[in-house]
Amino acid sequence: MNSASPAPGSQSSLRERNLLRVLDTVTSLGSLTQVEIAEQTGLSAATVSNMVRDLHAAGVVSLTPGTRNGRRAVHVALATPDGVIGAMVFGDRDVRVAVAASPERILSSTRMPLPAEHAADEGLNRAAILIADLLEQLGHEPSELLAVGVGIPAPIDSVSGQVGSSGILPGWRGVDIEVAAGDALRTPTQVDNTANLAAIGELNAGALQGVQDAIHVKMSYGVGAGLIIDGSLYRGSAGTAGEIGHVTIDDRGAVCRCGNRGCLDTVVGSAAILDALRPTHGGVTLKDVISRALAGDTACQRVLGDAGDALGSALSAVVNLLNPQMISVGGQMARVGELLLGPARRTIERCALPSAGQSVTIVPGVLGDEADVIGALHLAHEMRETAQRAGLALA
Amino acid sequence: MNSASPAPGSQSSLRERNLLRVLDTVTSLGSLTQVEIAEQTGLSAATVSNMVRDLHAAGVVSLTPGTRNGRRAVHVALATPDGVIGAMVFGDRDVRVAVAASPERILSSTRMPLPAEHAADEGLNRAAILIADLLEQLGHEPSELLAVGVGIPAPIDSVSGQVGSSGILPGWRGVDIEVAAGDALRTPTQVDNTANLAAIGELNAGALQGVQDAIHVKMSYGVGAGLIIDGSLYRGSAGTAGEIGHVTIDDRGAVCRCGNRGCLDTVVGSAAILDALRPTHGGVTLKDVISRALAGDTACQRVLGDAGDALGSALSAVVNLLNPQMISVGGQMARVGELLLGPARRTIERCALPSAGQSVTIVPGVLGDEADVIGALHLAHEMRETAQRAGLALA
Repeated sequence: MNSASPAPGSQSSLRERNLLRVLDTVTSLGSLTQVEIAEQTGLSAATVSNMVRDLHAAGVVSLTPGTRNGRRAVHVALATPDGVIGAMVFGDRDVRVAVAASPERILSSTRMPLPAEHAADEGLNRAAILIADLLEQLGHEPSELLAVGVGIPAPIDSVSGQVGSSGILPGWRGVDIEVAAGDALRTPTQVDNTANLAAIGELNAGALQGVQDAIHVKMSYGVGAGLIIDGSLYRGSAGTAGEIGHVTIDDRGAVCRCGNRGCLDTVVGSAAILDALRPTHGGVTLKDVISRALAGDTACQRVLGDAGDALGSALSAVVNLLNPQMISVGGQMARVGELLLGPARRTIERCALPSAGQSVTIVPGVLGDEADVIGALHLAHEMRETAQRAGLALA
Repeated sequence: MNSASPAPGSQSSLRERNLLRVLDTVTSLGSLTQVEIAEQTGLSAATVSNMVRDLHAAGVVSLTPGTRNGRRAVHVALATPDGVIGAMVFGDRDVRVAVAASPERILSSTRMPLPAEHAADEGLNRAAILIADLLEQLGHEPSELLAVGVGIPAPIDSVSGQVGSSGILPGWRGVDIEVAAGDALRTPTQVDNTANLAAIGELNAGALQGVQDAIHVKMSYGVGAGLIIDGSLYRGSAGTAGEIGHVTIDDRGAVCRCGNRGCLDTVVGSAAILDALRPTHGGVTLKDVISRALAGDTACQRVLGDAGDALGSALSAVVNLLNPQMISVGGQMARVGELLLGPARRTIERCALPSAGQSVTIVPGVLGDEADVIGALHLAHEMRETAQRAGLALA
């Protein structure tokens, strides 16, 4: 303990605890009036008023005039002198948004389902409204949102700015996503596919911290990967590197939405998993399959184990080609842990070149389903920093 | 023409032509006595003596005491003030060596067959003797050989320094190649696999000059690749990246020498090509198959086309994973050009993700079979430059 800390029970330690209670409440609940803070903390209105005054003087919270129950009231929020950043991450069936002070400090986040065949502008506009709502709840002006990282569950061609395969996300065909997202949000955006974002998340704050040569595989409804080469994300010449989901596993296999046959995605994607279980388990969801497998359902375990085996086949090619030091596996399906990773690991041992197979470690991602959102916030954070440096250079 | 040049036919232009004749002779034939230079050029002994004196005064040639026909004679050679560099590149059945002033200026090179199952020290010692012979013919002391790039047709584990697969090059098992090569040559060496060396060659002096994201595939007796990422060779975490030959094409296919089944190498390697043609063509060699295919033999064309198709399957995975801008194909088999590249290109168009497939160009390598030797010289050149910089820093 720091020797300058006040003794427990002293006046100053009580004040410190009260300050922290107010700060924690504002951090976890967003923008609040002083009355709401008093209700949440159980502190008196006078104490809250003192604490808020001191926190504001120290620049830790911001005060914004507003209303509560029709009466004027000051809203107290965490001060974000550098503005806030956002994430907007589309899945096959939903969109998740977050507003954050920094990639490590998410202020608020939410999720909304989306129809599978939604149009790009519909998805983007709905998500932009969600972000606007979060900003308002947090007591931030729209202009304080300085940059947004946008995730799309499909390869994005960096030349055209469009989805790189006409069969994936049909409602987004022909749309320049960065332009459309910038129009919907009225703030600078950067777009990447969700597997790349998840890799950026795990690299900066998760399983791949400090690793120079790695792959992050995201297994949810579909499967994708982000490649870490010499310590940073590698996007390839046109931005679509890492498309492990469309590596051929069986060239006479099922037709894939990318137009090829027997891609890894047709074997381990959620559609294949659910099809395999339909005769015995009926219309279950991927979430059901995962929880049943964890509860001991042997058929669900077998199907996920077979998916791990197929993943291992594709990863053997990746291991031979790229000789990575570490592979992390995240996304919804990775929640089953060793049920998926064990078979993948055994197949890599069996199929990869011995030296390459022995030099790679397969681990679960540590950021769970949020890896892509955290990665999107890292993209936004970098954009903000670049803009601020450019601003300083101009000043 | 430079206005300071002497008029044609003048005394000084005659002297310049004689100087160039002497210089060209020494450049193309190596170390010679003045008598030999006179014989080769048709110039008088007195003229040769004058020219050699001037070239030596200008630092262009070096003079080394020696003998000719049992009598003392001075050997004239190109001056290499920075010493010379070497290449020693092992194939499945031979070794090629070269001595060069720079990667662009090979002074002399030669080739020697080796039994397929030769022991590492036997191969290295024989190759070291070949290099010593070249140095002597060129009039260089062994100490002038400052660095040698060594190529091995197998993955090399950068941690152990050994061949990364026990079934490939069995006679080299357990040998730390860089140490053994350094012992045999008594000069610093750097070892890499021949596909990586060929990629370095094509990147610096061939088809991939100026390309940031590319793959070079070497197809000879076996198949391997070197990955160019952000403008330089990528070796992976343990030095074995690029092993396209052991990407699985058919997981119930033939057993591969790496211990896996149905690797690309079992489908397009020379053993598979020759096996396919044995019933109709008997015991032909790879060289025969290539020349017959070029002469119109439809069976040879079909077998090489099928190899191109299988190469295209493996490259589709590479294209999806790495999204390269260019793929160059070199090695002996690439001599058939479009007979191999056409089917590879069509398979990539059919199987790769559209955006990644459309953004890649497939071209033949331009350095032919010498790409790996030129790459080895580039490795040696870099070693020499690094050592010279270190020497300057110490001085």
